[in-house]
Amino acid sequence: MAKEQPKAHPGNSTAQPREEKRRAAWRDELYRIIFEADTRSGQLFDIVLLVAILVSIAVVSMETVAYFKETPPWPDVLAGVEWTLTLLFTAEYVARLICVRRPWRYALSFFGIIDLLAWMPLYLTLFSVESKSLVIVRSIRLLRVFRVLKMMRMLREAHSLKRAIWRSRDKIFVFVAVVMVAVTISGTLMYQIEHESNPVFSSIPQSMYWAIVTMTTVGYGDIVPTTVVGKVISATLILLGYSLIIVPTGFVSAEIQSQRSASRLISRTCAHCLREGHLPDASYCDNCGERLLEK
Amino acid sequence: MAKEQPKAHPGNSTAQPREEKRRAAWRDELYRIIFEADTRSGQLFDIVLLVAILVSIAVVSMETVAYFKETPPWPDVLAGVEWTLTLLFTAEYVARLICVRRPWRYALSFFGIIDLLAWMPLYLTLFSVESKSLVIVRSIRLLRVFRVLKMMRMLREAHSLKRAIWRSRDKIFVFVAVVMVAVTISGTLMYQIEHESNPVFSSIPQSMYWAIVTMTTVGYGDIVPTTVVGKVISATLILLGYSLIIVPTGFVSAEIQSQRSASRLISRTCAHCLREGHLPDASYCDNCGERLLEK
Amino acid sequence: MAKEQPKAHPGNSTAQPREEKRRAAWRDELYRIIFEADTRSGQLFDIVLLVAILVSIAVVSMETVAYFKETPPWPDVLAGVEWTLTLLFTAEYVARLICVRRPWRYALSFFGIIDLLAWMPLYLTLFSVESKSLVIVRSIRLLRVFRVLKMMRMLREAHSLKRAIWRSRDKIFVFVAVVMVAVTISGTLMYQIEHESNPVFSSIPQSMYWAIVTMTTVGYGDIVPTTVVGKVISATLILLGYSLIIVPTGFVSAEIQSQRSASRLISRTCAHCLREGHLPDASYCDNCGERLLEK
Amino acid sequence: MAKEQPKAHPGNSTAQPREEKRRAAWRDELYRIIFEADTRSGQLFDIVLLVAILVSIAVVSMETVAYFKETPPWPDVLAGVEWTLTLLFTAEYVARLICVRRPWRYALSFFGIIDLLAWMPLYLTLFSVESKSLVIVRSIRLLRVFRVLKMMRMLREAHSLKRAIWRSRDKIFVFVAVVMVAVTISGTLMYQIEHESNPVFSSIPQSMYWAIVTMTTVGYGDIVPTTVVGKVISATLILLGYSLIIVPTGFVSAEIQSQRSASRLISRTCAHCLREGHLPDASYCDNCGERLLEK
Repeated sequence: MAKEQPKAHPGNSTAQPREEKRRAAWRDELYRIIFEADTRSGQLFDIVLLVAILVSIAVVSMETVAYFKETPPWPDVLAGVEWTLTLLFTAEYVARLICVRRPWRYALSFFGIIDLLAWMPLYLTLFSVESKSLVIVRSIRLLRVFRVLKMMRMLREAHSLKRAIWRSRDKIFVFVAVVMVAVTISGTLMYQIEHESNPVFSSIPQSMYWAIVTMTTVGYGDIVPTTVVGKVISATLILLGYSLIIVPTGFVSAEIQSQRSASRLISRTCAHCLREGHLPDASYCDNCGERLLEK
Repeated sequence: MAKEQPKAHPGNSTAQPREEKRRAAWRDELYRIIFEADTRSGQLFDIVLLVAILVSIAVVSMETVAYFKETPPWPDVLAGVEWTLTLLFTAEYVARLICVRRPWRYALSFFGIIDLLAWMPLYLTLFSVESKSLVIVRSIRLLRVFRVLKMMRMLREAHSLKRAIWRSRDKIFVFVAVVMVAVTISGTLMYQIEHESNPVFSSIPQSMYWAIVTMTTVGYGDIVPTTVVGKVISATLILLGYSLIIVPTGFVSAEIQSQRSASRLISRTCAHCLREGHLPDASYCDNCGERLLEK
Repeated sequence: MAKEQPKAHPGNSTAQPREEKRRAAWRDELYRIIFEADTRSGQLFDIVLLVAILVSIAVVSMETVAYFKETPPWPDVLAGVEWTLTLLFTAEYVARLICVRRPWRYALSFFGIIDLLAWMPLYLTLFSVESKSLVIVRSIRLLRVFRVLKMMRMLREAHSLKRAIWRSRDKIFVFVAVVMVAVTISGTLMYQIEHESNPVFSSIPQSMYWAIVTMTTVGYGDIVPTTVVGKVISATLILLGYSLIIVPTGFVSAEIQSQRSASRLISRTCAHCLREGHLPDASYCDNCGERLLEK
Repeated sequence: MAKEQPKAHPGNSTAQPREEKRRAAWRDELYRIIFEADTRSGQLFDIVLLVAILVSIAVVSMETVAYFKETPPWPDVLAGVEWTLTLLFTAEYVARLICVRRPWRYALSFFGIIDLLAWMPLYLTLFSVESKSLVIVRSIRLLRVFRVLKMMRMLREAHSLKRAIWRSRDKIFVFVAVVMVAVTISGTLMYQIEHESNPVFSSIPQSMYWAIVTMTTVGYGDIVPTTVVGKVISATLILLGYSLIIVPTGFVSAEIQSQRSASRLISRTCAHCLREGHLPDASYCDNCGERLLEK
């Protein structure tokens, strides 16, 4: 997410005219503010942007609530805030386009498109185009929160989370396949048993939806078996499904644990007897008594 | 699943006539394509078959949806696809029968019967036999997905899952017994308390169904206590049941963890007796007493 | 459960008359069959009893189902089976009373009372006493299943489960206290917020029932917040409650894990260098190379 | 919680007049009873107070139940008990104010305000002020249960729980951020898909409430998707949300586990530098290089 524009603006073009160079200077400055999170102003920019995104989501959410839609002063206030923020997002988008070296590459990147869709739809409504619903993508911009989080040295946490998921990708695939097979079989089975006496099991896809809702223990209750056989099969499927669904919990636990102990053990080795695995704050090798090197 | 026909067609029958042998050659070839997943054509066959199964399940599912049942072009399209796939499955079944050495053994095996039921029912409908519902078994064929997965070197994952379950079989049995006793006792109890003022607790089996739905935290809400005593007992049962149901999560976690650390032990091998699995800090082989090589 | 009568009938009374002694012989035999699970006949008795209990529970359950209550042949069949089993349980109870040395001690023990309540209520119905509902206690007899399980060498599993729970008793107490405080506070809070506009939050106990159903993620849906504030508070409580409720899962996992690694490590010690923790199948010490003693 | 008044009444003021000193003596005694839990009378006070709080909560709860509100003897009984307890709480509050050295500091502390709100509202009702609902804060006083628990040497458990949560604060923050982003995106998405044909998805905040209820697997069933697309998206979100929500379980497990093994390390101490926490198989102190004693 933070590597949108990694190769921009190193000042290596020595043969540039002076004018060009001065322009490059403020563009570089702008680039550092907008795309980097290390400087003070960069951090400030990220936080202001995040607050603006949160406010704009709050405003869009409030506009869907009946009370705010109808009570006199609110619709105007909300429209005002939304237009202000939209202008701000437009300015931000233009600034991004200006300060990056390859504007098209940014414009066509994932976040470039998201940034475009954050302000474009509202202008289109002026030409009576029904595009308001595209404002939904603004909530995707919330993902930028991780840039701000990184800033706060929490990157390591987000990273360990991501690594745990990545390491388990094979298991996740096998597990999703098993769940899909289980959902298909139990969905088809329940449809055959229930659909004649129970209209809510109207089709196999509907039954598969029931199977997912049930196996994850969400259990809305909008679709429930009513026949005796249906209930017996259903109770069995619930117990089997539950056994299935707790397996990933165990894998995630084990993954996190092993990752943690791995990062703890590969820390320090004695230069004398080559014994590994000394505690982070050890000063002497606990095998041969030799002094350890400082970290 | 992949060992349906392990002893088929090794070319050890030396006294066969030439004609016979040539026939055996293409039968062997066919066998390798259909039953083995190691060659390129075998892999292709498995993937094509899996796609065909997925499509046929999608078609059968769509046929149960009201929209596709009624909108003019769809019923014919779906019937067409279904007949095409059924002919394909028939051809596949015949091919399997031809290429295996002992056709009856295949025909009576688990997957043999499932394969038969994948195409047979549709033909029977021609003789106005109401056997459409048998098409359900097609979804069982989805289990073949694991053959394809194996191919993709994910066997190890599926295997570790299976082994974790197998190792815990005793615990699973004890746990299922405990759950069953808990379900019976709480089901009977709730029936006695609720059934007079609350018609949904209509019988003890119904109450046991409620107990299973509640203890697994699915909680549909189609059967809920309405009396005060019923709610108090029910809240207590929920907390007890919840405590019960989290125990297997812990066991699964521990099982996966211990299996993982076991597989980590297979790292150091004795150069003298080739024994594997020495602890990371061992200095001598624990089988023959020979000094181990340093890592 | 299996220690109901530990001090019964050792044949130490040497001064007994011959007649008495012969009687003691068959009483001892009967005692061994009924109360012990080591001999072949003892095992058989336990299994037969368990099957009888299961059948009697099935019959009592079926009698509550409308279909079996009304369809002509069933009520008589079920009544017949129930009376047969009740006579059998009566005979068993009498046999237990005869063969134990201190009948009163058995009669007043937990299982003695349960055994009595297994047959007594049905006789009382003959005198038009409405005591049918006491038959509920029969399901408690299912706990005897653990005697049979023990027989099958699964005791160790049930024991490890019990020990894990016992070890965590302090944590369980603290956790139950925390949950109770959380349930009380959130129940009172939701009552104050919701009860005026939402009649289902009728009283504080009702709101506490809602809090338990919600925090354990059962979520029946019979009681749900309808006001905006109620939904906001409720969503917050769900997230907090969920965070709370996953803590015991972690503790149970850790408990099982540590118990497991403890039982693995305290296995073998080298007699030469006193190093502990050799793997179960090691022959030589992995520290000094000395031969280990056989287990 | 137990450190409300840490710096109170050490008897170091030597220049005090005799009268003053005698008064200080009983104030010190009172202070020790009310604020400390080490002496016998202090323990008794805490338990009596806890029982009084529990009874007062029970009474307040019962007053909201229709049966107790209407059946003649009950309203008077409950009002009587409530007034008695309120007088008792008033006395306790006054006693606390008297015996602490800095009354204002106590009065403005968290528990000081809670203690005030435990008795104040009932008096205000005498002046026809509608303040009954403030009695809710009494349930917050239940938090004092931890003082009593501490007394019972269970502090260590509560502490390990608290430490596990504290250690994971960074992860909790990242996780809450991820959940919030997921809830916002899926809430907005479902609103766009469902709200036209399904009035229960009335606004984006409502959809976000649905997302929280669904992702935590509570699944009330008051808000459910009805369109086909809505169900498909919803089933996907359930599976993704479930995968998300099991991650903290793994972290909590790992946290508890690592904390536990850390506490196991504090077993071997160096006789030379008194450093604790050497690994079980260490031969030399890793702090000063001195040889460790054999276990």
